[in-house]
This record gives sequence, structure tokens and C-alpha cells, in this order.
Amino acid sequence: MTVARTVELEGHIIDSGTMGMCFGVVMDMGGEFEVEDFEVGRHKHAETYCRMRVMAESEDDLRAILHELNQQGATVADPRDATLENAPEDGVVPVDFYSTTNHPTYVRVDGEWVEIEDPEMDCALVVERADPEDPQGVGNADERRNGDGNTRVLTKVLNAVEEGDLVVTGETGIRVEPPERPRNGGGSFGFMQGGVSSERPSASLIEEIADEMREVRENDGNVLVVCGPAIVHSGGRDALADLVRAGFIDNLSAGNGFAVHDLERDLYGTSLGVDTESLEHPRKGHKHHIYTISEIARLGSIEAAVDEGIVDEGVMYECIDNDVPFVLAGSIRDDGPLPDTITDAIEAQDAIREQAHDADIVLMLSTLLHSVAVGNCLPSTTKTVCVDINPATVTQLLDRGSAQAIGMVTDIGTFIPMLRDELLEE
Amino acid sequence: MTVARTVELEGHIIDSGTMGMCFGVVMDMGGEFEVEDFEVGRHKHAETYCRMRVMAESEDDLRAILHELNQQGATVADPRDATLENAPEDGVVPVDFYSTTNHPTYVRVDGEWVEIEDPEMDCALVVERADPEDPQGVGNADERRNGDGNTRVLTKVLNAVEEGDLVVTGETGIRVEPPERPRNGGGSFGFMQGGVSSERPSASLIEEIADEMREVRENDGNVLVVCGPAIVHSGGRDALADLVRAGFIDNLSAGNGFAVHDLERDLYGTSLGVDTESLEHPRKGHKHHIYTISEIARLGSIEAAVDEGIVDEGVMYECIDNDVPFVLAGSIRDDGPLPDTITDAIEAQDAIREQAHDADIVLMLSTLLHSVAVGNCLPSTTKTVCVDINPATVTQLLDRGSAQAIGMVTDIGTFIPMLRDELLEE
Amino acid sequence: MTVARTVELEGHIIDSGTMGMCFGVVMDMGGEFEVEDFEVGRHKHAETYCRMRVMAESEDDLRAILHELNQQGATVADPRDATLENAPEDGVVPVDFYSTTNHPTYVRVDGEWVEIEDPEMDCALVVERADPEDPQGVGNADERRNGDGNTRVLTKVLNAVEEGDLVVTGETGIRVEPPERPRNGGGSFGFMQGGVSSERPSASLIEEIADEMREVRENDGNVLVVCGPAIVHSGGRDALADLVRAGFIDNLSAGNGFAVHDLERDLYGTSLGVDTESLEHPRKGHKHHIYTISEIARLGSIEAAVDEGIVDEGVMYECIDNDVPFVLAGSIRDDGPLPDTITDAIEAQDAIREQAHDADIVLMLSTLLHSVAVGNCLPSTTKTVCVDINPATVTQLLDRGSAQAIGMVTDIGTFIPMLRDELLEE
Amino acid sequence: MTVARTVELEGHIIDSGTMGMCFGVVMDMGGEFEVEDFEVGRHKHAETYCRMRVMAESEDDLRAILHELNQQGATVADPRDATLENAPEDGVVPVDFYSTTNHPTYVRVDGEWVEIEDPEMDCALVVERADPEDPQGVGNADERRNGDGNTRVLTKVLNAVEEGDLVVTGETGIRVEPPERPRNGGGSFGFMQGGVSSERPSASLIEEIADEMREVRENDGNVLVVCGPAIVHSGGRDALADLVRAGFIDNLSAGNGFAVHDLERDLYGTSLGVDTESLEHPRKGHKHHIYTISEIARLGSIEAAVDEGIVDEGVMYECIDNDVPFVLAGSIRDDGPLPDTITDAIEAQDAIREQAHDADIVLMLSTLLHSVAVGNCLPSTTKTVCVDINPATVTQLLDRGSAQAIGMVTDIGTFIPMLRDELLEE
Repeated sequence: MTVARTVELEGHIIDSGTMGMCFGVVMDMGGEFEVEDFEVGRHKHAETYCRMRVMAESEDDLRAILHELNQQGATVADPRDATLENAPEDGVVPVDFYSTTNHPTYVRVDGEWVEIEDPEMDCALVVERADPEDPQGVGNADERRNGDGNTRVLTKVLNAVEEGDLVVTGETGIRVEPPERPRNGGGSFGFMQGGVSSERPSASLIEEIADEMREVRENDGNVLVVCGPAIVHSGGRDALADLVRAGFIDNLSAGNGFAVHDLERDLYGTSLGVDTESLEHPRKGHKHHIYTISEIARLGSIEAAVDEGIVDEGVMYECIDNDVPFVLAGSIRDDGPLPDTITDAIEAQDAIREQAHDADIVLMLSTLLHSVAVGNCLPSTTKTVCVDINPATVTQLLDRGSAQAIGMVTDIGTFIPMLRDELLEE
Repeated sequence: MTVARTVELEGHIIDSGTMGMCFGVVMDMGGEFEVEDFEVGRHKHAETYCRMRVMAESEDDLRAILHELNQQGATVADPRDATLENAPEDGVVPVDFYSTTNHPTYVRVDGEWVEIEDPEMDCALVVERADPEDPQGVGNADERRNGDGNTRVLTKVLNAVEEGDLVVTGETGIRVEPPERPRNGGGSFGFMQGGVSSERPSASLIEEIADEMREVRENDGNVLVVCGPAIVHSGGRDALADLVRAGFIDNLSAGNGFAVHDLERDLYGTSLGVDTESLEHPRKGHKHHIYTISEIARLGSIEAAVDEGIVDEGVMYECIDNDVPFVLAGSIRDDGPLPDTITDAIEAQDAIREQAHDADIVLMLSTLLHSVAVGNCLPSTTKTVCVDINPATVTQLLDRGSAQAIGMVTDIGTFIPMLRDELLEE
Repeated sequence: MTVARTVELEGHIIDSGTMGMCFGVVMDMGGEFEVEDFEVGRHKHAETYCRMRVMAESEDDLRAILHELNQQGATVADPRDATLENAPEDGVVPVDFYSTTNHPTYVRVDGEWVEIEDPEMDCALVVERADPEDPQGVGNADERRNGDGNTRVLTKVLNAVEEGDLVVTGETGIRVEPPERPRNGGGSFGFMQGGVSSERPSASLIEEIADEMREVRENDGNVLVVCGPAIVHSGGRDALADLVRAGFIDNLSAGNGFAVHDLERDLYGTSLGVDTESLEHPRKGHKHHIYTISEIARLGSIEAAVDEGIVDEGVMYECIDNDVPFVLAGSIRDDGPLPDTITDAIEAQDAIREQAHDADIVLMLSTLLHSVAVGNCLPSTTKTVCVDINPATVTQLLDRGSAQAIGMVTDIGTFIPMLRDELLEE
Repeated sequence: MTVARTVELEGHIIDSGTMGMCFGVVMDMGGEFEVEDFEVGRHKHAETYCRMRVMAESEDDLRAILHELNQQGATVADPRDATLENAPEDGVVPVDFYSTTNHPTYVRVDGEWVEIEDPEMDCALVVERADPEDPQGVGNADERRNGDGNTRVLTKVLNAVEEGDLVVTGETGIRVEPPERPRNGGGSFGFMQGGVSSERPSASLIEEIADEMREVRENDGNVLVVCGPAIVHSGGRDALADLVRAGFIDNLSAGNGFAVHDLERDLYGTSLGVDTESLEHPRKGHKHHIYTISEIARLGSIEAAVDEGIVDEGVMYECIDNDVPFVLAGSIRDDGPLPDTITDAIEAQDAIREQAHDADIVLMLSTLLHSVAVGNCLPSTTKTVCVDINPATVTQLLDRGSAQAIGMVTDIGTFIPMLRDELLEE
């Protein structure tokens, strides 16, 4: 940590989340902090003051951190004037221009803090100094607005920037004042903290999930996968079977539907002329579905069907072949169900509870019902990965989930093959 | 076509869509048909009668076709009794059991058509013959229900089937009567035709899209791709750039946002310490966004930035390097915009219209606004592929689209890399 | 039926759905038809020909019907030239202008059928006659395109129409050729029929549902309501209780969660200081949830709680007070459950099946799980109304539902109060 | 504030958000706090300690607050043993039972802190004291698990509670340890704070929005409404027109489509036989759409159409009649457009920017494009209300919005009429 700078914050910064965000920013961006002074607001209407020293490994890193802190409302402690640079051309800003938030903002010009006009996100700030020769602004180009001869700071969108405009650059001499949490509730109006949205490239997220699964395996940990039938429809079944076979799955939780679809592919994939690749006769699907259940019922269990060689591939097959325990929980929309399915909800919950307690990481794949059932039994310390094509499902699972969670809105039919490739092809 | 059978249909089978569905079923399943008799219902209340001979290449194929026709309401012409087989065990049905629709259905038992009780989908039909010795059913086990001594056909879910039950098998002697389109409107109640939902595995759909694109290229056709910014966020950018470089894209249509995100990755991906793989400093994104526009504005155009070597990879770079024309249409939510962006909506529409008229196939990738704009200009004969994570977007595009269309609800960040692999890695 | 006109159709019009659509159009729009000639295509590659007389009650109605038939590909039998009218100003079309489909289209000009250029939806057609003085088109303003001196029909968007342009009006002399269903499958490309999307005002749909419910009641029919917990969260509970009390509901199907939320409101709405209107202490919700179950468990059943006067309002209360039978089906995500909840899935299905068989109309309100379970047991002749805020849920229910169904994507918290007002306030 | 209690917190409570949540809980629930001691963690690895006195107006209120603080990790300062009470029956808990979080939790029994087993949400805690007579637990019923003779605290779901179980009640003697924000990032795993989801009844939220609008009007404030075409489709148009006429709207922002749909209803609602209530001829919609634009183009502007008496009701009519300024911003998917529509994106943004700067409260109704455009120009101090049927749209708008916002996922076709009734019918 070779470079440092001191910043200050003031206001209802604890309950507005600002203080926590600032500590988080520094840590997330690889810096360190040292609180030099801290006066907590001792009651509801008292403000909190914090002065802290922020350290980073390079000037670039420090600048990036300070930029973020500034947007949260922190100001560099030792106030200097903002740095200004002329716009090189119309519609062009200097390299290090200050990009605005939409919060009330003050810029220090010639020793004075000037409030910016019309705060708006993602704009440049342009300083119009009072003309000392013409304090009334009579000869000023923008007479109407700056007639009082005071220094102004305008908020300009890029296409309004003109050559020669005095554009604010860097982070010094700028003070942002994010709105604070209303003291007396806000009625129905929720208080929105400036969250950090994390749009992440799908492929790189999958890599990290694979890393995590590898690590769990190396530590003899336990991976629980919760499976919905969409895995089979969307073509993720073979990849999941590969993962079970390769030992990446320690426990499987699903419903009757998932198992029947998986077994049906196996029983009818080649024998009755239905091409599982092209699905050319999808209309017969439901009859196969029922008949699959009937066949397993005749044999007594999925394990019996495997033993008799009638089922010889797929996810359920690999579970039995590799001694991966599974729980199939029944539901009122089931056909059949399979003899392996636990039809009593309380009994099924108890079985799920045991799986959940053993897990170190849980992959919730395209099933809301079963994921909620598992999630209900999880301690907050278990890592969870929630994958679904429906953003509402992912949100709901993250809301109820553990303290460390990844949510991905993606296609399970492409997710599992890519995860498999990541884990197996190396 | 070695095997054949004659079926009949009767009722308001044209406007209820039944007739069309039946012709479609035969063709989709590889059969042929020969209409032997056809009496059209000449006015609103008159019924239509059709007798047709259905041919297939094998008994199995024919049976599959007849099963589907039966579910649409067609009956085998020469009526014979339904075939019956005993259930081998509790909860187990014979191999060729008849799986019900939820339509009113009649089964021919001992020369009589008997209406089934309580029609319900995906069930087995069980015949309870009247006892000739005990026509009043006095000694019958199920006295209450069958006290009248008549033959009954029960609809049983799998777990209600008992060993020895007389289960209906095959397709003969069964008549289904799907509800017909109400003659006098149905008020607000929509008339639901028994559509065929097509859940398709993602990977195999991507293969077929690749085949189509290859074919278009071989015929010197024109592939237009419509791009939303999610392509860049979700990590599909490099794969798309590869496709442009390899000559699979002839025209690109997008908005200001897509181009800026693409260029920003290029301009800042390595130069300012932001790692595009891990996105470690996502918070600075917006400043980069604006500055990217400013830089291109300074240089005058994207092409100028490529010529000066400032932009040397990415989708826009490949477009310019490979002479793939592009249209960037402006919108009121744009930052900037780039000098290449057409800000006037009418002018932009005209440019889009030209692209649309030239296209043989259009890939609409994760943008509703631009896809609708392109779709508005397409003739119904152009093939379209609509890909989005939001099912509502895909539905809306298919509804307005051309007569031949593929809709995929999937993650663009996994779709484009898989399409690229399909097209390039061979 | 005072006015009539004869139209013709030709092609693969049965399996492409065109024929059915045309019959449907006439009936939906209040007309009649009389088929004068019908030659069915007897095998896969043979085309069908239909000539029919269309009748309506007024010229206006007939014109509207012919417009629709035209868009489906029907042509007026006795071909005359298209009518043409000059555009009165730039960007302005004549009153009765012909608005295009995006299908290939032919216009009859001076006895010749001319194919329109660049078909596109919602445009005007402008005729440019060949110049008899200048057959080579040498002096033509648009030499490049019309150099051959032939008559052309251009597709113009509104803003491209110029004063004096010869705009096609009415429906005569226009032939539309919608693409036909591909004979040999279309690979993955679905064949899109020109469906009729029905955006309906919410309030008027609710009126029609109310009418239907009133009618069912008058005929001693049976209304089954399937209820999700969102009814309570979103504030629809009191209105539903009113409907039960007023006798509009004959049967109720729900899960444990719905009942607990309903009872909790009742048990804690006033007693423990939680204001059910403002929900000011929502954080304590879960504890109340569990304690509510515990209380009912202590008393033995919901009915016992009503008898002891502990529960004295709400949906469950009204069900017991008005002898409306209910089924509470268990699920693996339940807390508790209540003693009234059937935890075994097969047992619960049997109870649901009985409700479903008795119903004449089913209202599925904000629950996918229970609605699918009920829907699985319904014959195709039962009317269904599916209401959910999630369009995917509505679509899924309609797809599996009966032949007559209404789907509404709306807020259950506003839907039920408006339905109640419709049914009770008169 | 008549009752008080002192609580303590310790750990990385600032950056984990715990401290802010605790202050928030007290204020939201009507209490007060007085920080008695506060030792900030001065650097990344140092923990923070806070002791604060919490005050409330009644014992009940205080208990509710302490319950919430406890769930966030605060412990009552003066440690006493947890209170225990016997379960009165199987499956029944004492009134004041402690309902668990899923965080690691400690219970003070006989002066010792005992960690609970298998933490899980919404359960009861049951204490099993070591048997002093049988320290080895030999005779214990649950030998296997409690063989060591130590006191245990079990986490039991309701249906596992047995009569006589020693259930923990109240909040004293319980310490919760919510996971803390990982010090070194968490890789891709987001750190989930225990947020407070706010499911609110729709009707009561609408009341509060109405209150807010009334207050703005009383203070001569400015209400900006941003309108999407769904308002017209879904039947909210008349109610919105009423609000404009009654003076509740000061500014309107929309696109070409909204205005055309609104005008079309007016122009064709009665004149051409289309019943706007039942929408019986929806198929002709598009032709009307184009012709409406053509008519307004002929007259020159919407205002001219009003002046000539051709448009005499609807939202646009009321805007003109009541001098409510409007901005119609163009887009590439527009038909026409109307002469009033600003087709240049930059020009349109400038007009929108002015509206946004003037607004005190913004209602964003069913349009993502226009709402984002307005939102981009808003300072964080303007209140916003975002209403859409699509939860993703609401989330996106809230994320970019101001610091005080209400999001409602509801049907605009029922929302606006209910808001109108709330504002006008009194």
C-alpha cells in the first residue's frame, strides 16, 4: 500500500448504508482503510462523522477507489479546488473528466463550494466563472441564466459540451450528497441505496462455479444438486449424468417429474423410434411418460430397473451406479408416481432436510418448488447457486437463500453442458 | 407406403382447425393421405364429413399416426370393438394401453359405443362389463356406481389401476369428440385448439440454426443480425466478432448502446486496468461509456477509430474490417450518441428497411426495440430466429414475425458461443 | 343478410389453417357463408379450391369481412381492377386506403395482375403506371427501378406517400398469397399462422367473467375457485370472502399456505398490533405464520377454531360458515402444516379430482401448482378462467386447459375487488 | 418512550450492513435509540463494537423491536438465561416461542451459551438438558446424538415438536450470528443482506400514491406522468383522461404509439362501428392506426384536430383542453409518426430533460423506453412511482431511479381506474 489519501463522510451514514458501502468499496477494490476519527450519531437525529485514510497499491487504483467513494458521498479531506480542463472539441471531454451521479453535488471553484445545476447521471460538469470585469453578466453569452455574475457549474450531456468548456476532471474539490434515509419512514416510498448491479458474463460465472465445485470436492465437501424437469427438456441431461459419473455430485434432490423424464429418455430414446435428438414425435410424449412410470412400478423401483439392465444411462442411472443418494419428493401435479417417490409432504421434507444439512454447496437448477423446499432447510452459511431462465425465480431464491449466493438467469440447456466442459475437459 | 387404414371425421372440423391438424399430423409424421370422400359443410350450421386413407411405411409408424389422429377426433372407419387387455399388476398398464385426452370419448365394447366416465388427460380406460347373470348389478362389487348393470368405461389414473382390470389398448374402437368452435362466438372465452408445444433441446436447435446459416451462405444469401447490448454484458461479444470475421454475417442492425459497449470493451479492456473477464471494477463502467463516445466523437467515426488503430477488435471492428455494413439507430435512452448513430427515427427506419429487404434470414438477438423495427419491414417469406432470455419478448417477436420462425428462450451469453462453435469448429 | 359477395381460395388452404380462419372470420364478424364449390386436395401435394358466397347485414359489415378474408388470401371472385385514388397531401392517405399485410400481394391494374414491390405490413400501395408515351421509361424520374416501362405497385409507409400518388383503396382487385405450410416439414422453423391477438381491456373482461359466474349460479352450476397465497398478500382476501358469503363460490381448492395466510390475518389482524392495512411490522410475519398453525393444531381443525369463535372472518371462515367445501393440498414447501391439510399427494389428488369433476367453471387465481393439479383432472368441456400476474403462468395454464378459456395477466389484488364489485354492487 | 433495554452488537457490523439495518429497524418500528458505546473497527480486519439503548412506547413494541434486532445479530446486553416453556401438545408451541433465523445461533442455558444444532428458518428451539444423574447419557432416549451428556438445543419444525418439549420463548438469552461480509471478496458469490421484502396490498399502496399526489398538488408541485400504449389497450385511458381534466397531471411524456392509440379510440370509438368496450373487430386495428395518423397529418397537429372538433375526448384531448404540456418522443418502431412527434432522439431528450427537471413526482406507467429516458434525467431527490405488469421492468426502473421510489407490479388497466376513484371520489 504505497499511496494514501484521507476522506471524510458526514450525515446519517450508517442507516443510509453509506458507511458500509464505503468500507465495502475499499475492500472490493483491493484497498485498505484506517479509520482516524469516528463520531457516531448517538440518536435518531444526530449525524455521524467519519474520517478515514484510504490506501491502495498504485495511484490508478487509489483514483478508482476515490471515484467510487466520492459517488457515495465521501469527500477528500483536505479540500482543494476542483481541477478544470478545456474541452478539446464540441462533444468531446478531457480524458479524466468527472462523470456525474444524479445526487446533489458541490464543486469547489476558487475556494467556494458551488452547487451544480440540474443534477443528472453520467454527465460532465462545466464551470462558468463569474466574469470579474462584468459582474452583472451583461455581456455574457448566456445572459438569462448567469445574469447575476456568480460562478455556475452546469451539468452537460456529452452532446452539449462545447469546445473550450471548462470541464471538471479528477475527484478533488467535489462533494456529493446522496439522499439520506428519511428519519420518519418514507411512507410507502422505499429508500433506494445505490446498489451495485453485477452484470456478469455467463461463461466467466460458470468458470467460477466450477472452481467452487472443484474446491468443495478437494475438501471432501458435499455438493447437493436440486433438479427440475427442464433439465431434460432443454437438453442438459447428458451433461448432468456426466457430472454425476465423474463424482462432482454427492446428493440429488428432485421431484417425480424429473426422474420420469430422465428415465423416459432412457427407456424410449432408442427403443420405440423416437429420436431424442430431434424429438420428431413429441406428441406421443405423454403416453411414454405414463408407461415409463408403469414399467418402473412393475419392476418395483428405479434401482431394480437398473439392476435388470432396462435403464442403462441418464442421471438416475448414474446416481444408482455411483451410489449418489437421491430424494424424489412428490407433488399434487405428479403423474403416477414412481415407487421411489415420497408422496407424503412431511416425510419428503424430512428427507430433504437431511440432504440440506449435509450440503456445503447447493446447485438449484430450474425448479422453484424443490429449491424453496431445500432452501427452507439450509443454514445461512451454506453456499448456494441458483440457476433459472426466469429472473423472478432467481430473485425469490436469492432472497430466501444463504448469505453467500450466486444467481444466474440463464438457459439450463446450455448452462449444464458448459459447466460439464469446464469441469471435465482439462 | 406399405400399410394403410381409413379414418373418418365429422363435425365443424374445418373452422375448429381439426381437419388442418389431421392433414398436418400425417405429413409431419412421415405419412401420406388420400381423401376418399369430402362433404363440406356449406353454411355455418352444416357439418363437414371427411373420409381419408392414411398410409405409412410401417405398422409402427401407422399406429403412431393413428394415435394422433384419434386424439384429434378421427375414428378408424371400419368400426371394431376396442381391444382389451388385463392389467398385469396394481399400478401397471399393458404395453399398448390407450392414453386418454380430456375430451369426451366413446369406446366400442361388445358392439356398443359406451361413453367414458369423467374424462381426464393421461389416464387409462378400464372397461367394466355388465354382468349378464346379474343385470341389476346387485352382487357387483361397485354397486353404487354400476347398479344399473350397464357396461361402463372408467377413466383411471395409473395408481388406481388394479391387477386384472380390463384396460383398453391400441386405437381401434375409440372415438374422441374434441369440443368444436362455438357457432355463435364464445364471448370472451377463447377457443383453444390442441396445439403442439415444442419443447426443444437448446443444443440441437442451435445446430439447426447453424445449418440454416450455412445453407444461406452457400446460396449467396444474406444474413442480417440484430444485436442488443446484452450480447456484450453476457459475454457473447467475442463469439459474434468471430462470426463476422468468418463471413457468416452480411449485415448488422443495432442501437447506439450496443456499439458503445462493444467499443468500450475494446478501448478499455486492457488499457485502463479493467479486466473484461472478471469485470472487477464494474462501477467505473458509466464513465468509460461516456468517454468511449467522446473518443469516437473526437476521431469522427468508428471507421476512423479503426483506421487509426485505436479500435482493433470486437464486433464493430470486424464489421469495418470485413466490409459488413451496419446501421446504428438512435433512441431517447442513448448516451452521446456516437457520430455513426442515426438520431432521426424516420431516417433510421429507412436504413433498417433496406437491410430488412435484403435479408434472407434474420437473427434477432436480445433486443426488442430493434427487432420490432426490423420485423416491421420484413416480408412474411423471410426466415427469422428470435433469441431472448425473456419469453414475452420471444412471443411478441414471433407473433409479428414471418411465416417461418424459430423462437428460443435462452441466454445470449451461452447461445452465441455455442453457435460459433457449431459454425466454425469443424 | 342483405348484401353478398363471392370469394375464392386456392392452395394448401386446409392444413395451412387458412380455410378454417376464413370460416371463423365470417362467423366472428356476424356474417354467413355458403360454400358454392369445394374441391379438396386429395393428397399431400394437391391443392384445395373453395368458392364461397359471403353474406352480411350491411355494406359496411361486408367490407370489413372482405378485408379480413383478403388478408387471409381470399380474393373476390369476379376480378375487377383495383380502385385507385389520389393522395390528397404528402403523408396523407385516402379514407378507404388498402392497408398491406407482409405477404406477397398482387394488384390488378388495367386488367393485369402486378406483384407489389417489397411487401411490408401496415403500408399503403401506390400504383405507378407505365408511361405509354415513354415505354422505355427513359424520361422517368425513377429510371433505375422503372426503366422497363412496366406498371409498378410500390409499398409506401405513410410518411413516404406524396400528394397525388395513386393509392389503392377498397378490397377489390387485390390478391394476397400467405405462405403455405411447408410440405416437407420446415425443420425447426415453426409455421406461424396469422393469429388474432386479443388485447382486451381488463375491466370489460372482468364484467364478462362476472356474467358467466352469474349464469352458472342461475343454472345451479358449480363454481370452483383455486387460490394462491398472493390473494392474501396483495389484498384480495376480503373481496374473496365476500364472494364466498354471497354464494358465488361452490368449492375451494388451495394449499396450506393460502389457508395459513388467510387465518393469520384473522388471528393477528387486530389482536397483536399488526395493522393489516399498512402491514407496518411485516418482519414478524413468519413467527405469526408458525404460531397460527400451532393454534389451529391445538384446536384440532379450522372448523374447531371457527366454532370456538377464534376465527371469525376471512375466506376460510366464510367457507365453513357457508358450507363451502374446501381441499387444502400439502406441498414440500409448507410450514406446519395445518391439521386440515392433506399431506399425501395421491390422497390430495383424489380430493382435487372430485372437485374438478363437479365444476362447471374454474377460476384459477394466482397459483401455478394447484391450478395445474386441478387442470390435470378437468374434462375439456369445463370453462376455465386463469388469472396471474406472470404471463408465463397464464400461457402454461391455457395450453393445458379446456377448450373454452379466458386468460388474464393482471394483479389479483385489484382483480378480485373489481370482480366482487361487479357481482355484488348492483 | 417508557420502556427501554440495552443491546450489543459486535463484528464487521458496518460493512455487513448490520449496524445500518439495526438503526433502521428501530426507526421503522417507531422506537428510538441512544448509542452508549461505539468502538469502530479501524481497519479491514478489526471488529466494531456497539452498545445501544433501545426505547419504545410499550412493552409490546419493545419486544417486537428486540425480536428484529435479535435476528440481525444484536443481543440483549445483560445476559440472562433464555426463558423456557413446555410445549402444551404435540405440534403446538407456546405463545411467545422464539422463531429461528437460519443463522448460527447460541442459547444461554444454565449460564452456558449452547450452539443450536442444524440452524433452519422458522423453527422452534427445544432444549435438552444434560441429565445430571446420567452424564454419559446412557439411559437417554436419544442416546446416539446426546451420548455425551451435554445440554443440547435442537432446531425443530412445528410438526416435530412434542408435548413437554422445553421450547425457548422470548428474546433474552439468545445470540444470533449472521454471516459477515467476506473480508477478501467472496469471488462471484454475492453477499446477501437480510433484506426486508415488502409485499404490500395493492389497494393500500394506491391509496398512498393518491395521498402523495394530493400533497404535491396542494404544494403547487409538479406531477409528471410517463405513459405507455398499454394504458389504452388495457382500458386505463378514460381514468387517465379524468385525472388530467381534474388537474392532477402537470406534464405528460409519451411516445407516438400512446398518442395514436388514444386518438384512434376517439376517432373510431363510435364512428366506424368498432365498439371500444368489446373490441369486436380488433382485426381492423392496424388500418385505423395508420388512418388516424394520416388524419392528424392532414389537419397538421393534434391541437388542430381538437380545434376542429374532430378529437373531443381522451387523454390527448384533455391535455390540450387543460393546457397540460406533453412531449411525444419518436422511436424506430413508430408508424407514421404524428406531426407532433419529435423524431430526432437528441431533440426529444432535450424536451424530456426539461419535463424531468420540473417534476416533483414522476409516475412511470407501463413503458420501459420512455421511463428510462425520463429517469436518466432525474435528480435523485425526485420521488418516482414505477408501475408495470412485468416485474423486470419495475426492478430496472427502481435500480436506476431516485432515492425514494415505489414499485408496483400490477395491471395498469386496473391501477389507473382505482387511482382515479381514490383521487376523485370523495
